[in-house]
Amino acid sequence: MYIELIGFLAAILTTAAFVPQAYKIWKTKSAQGVSLTMYLIMFTGVTLWGVYGLFIHSNPMILANFNTASLLIMIIYFKVKHK
Amino acid sequence: MYIELIGFLAAILTTAAFVPQAYKIWKTKSAQGVSLTMYLIMFTGVTLWGVYGLFIHSNPMILANFNTASLLIMIIYFKVKHK
Repeated sequence: MYIELIGFLAAILTTAAFVPQAYKIWKTKSAQGVSLTMYLIMFTGVTLWGVYGLFIHSNPMILANFNTASLLIMIIYFKVKHK
Repeated sequence: MYIELIGFLAAILTTAAFVPQAYKIWKTKSAQGVSLTMYLIMFTGVTLWGVYGLFIHSNPMILANFNTASLLIMIIYFKVKHK
């Protein structure tokens, strides 16, 4: 229970971390300083973490990684659109 | 064993994802397009994931998150230095 709480806190933070970046790209309509390579690798990695979370039955990991994957798709879309 | 392999692959990808960004900042000597807020939140989240990994005895999570935390410290340093 206590452990799951740490997991959920971590989940909220690593997911939330991508929000300001997505907002910055949206506001400035520029994603010049952001590395597309980074986000593509990150998206693949985060999806695999989600699959790993499913296997080890970790709810915080499942929640965090599939949510983050959705946010990353948005950032990748902005980057490709506003390059 | 098979599950751990997925975890390690995810670990390599999410850690590697920060390398191009760090390289880009170092090469251009500018971190303008990168959100400091993102990296600070990310660093806290990743550190908590590492602690969570210790609790649930997940080697891929421990390895990935503490390595990523080190890379994030480097990016945060570049961002603060080259703002």
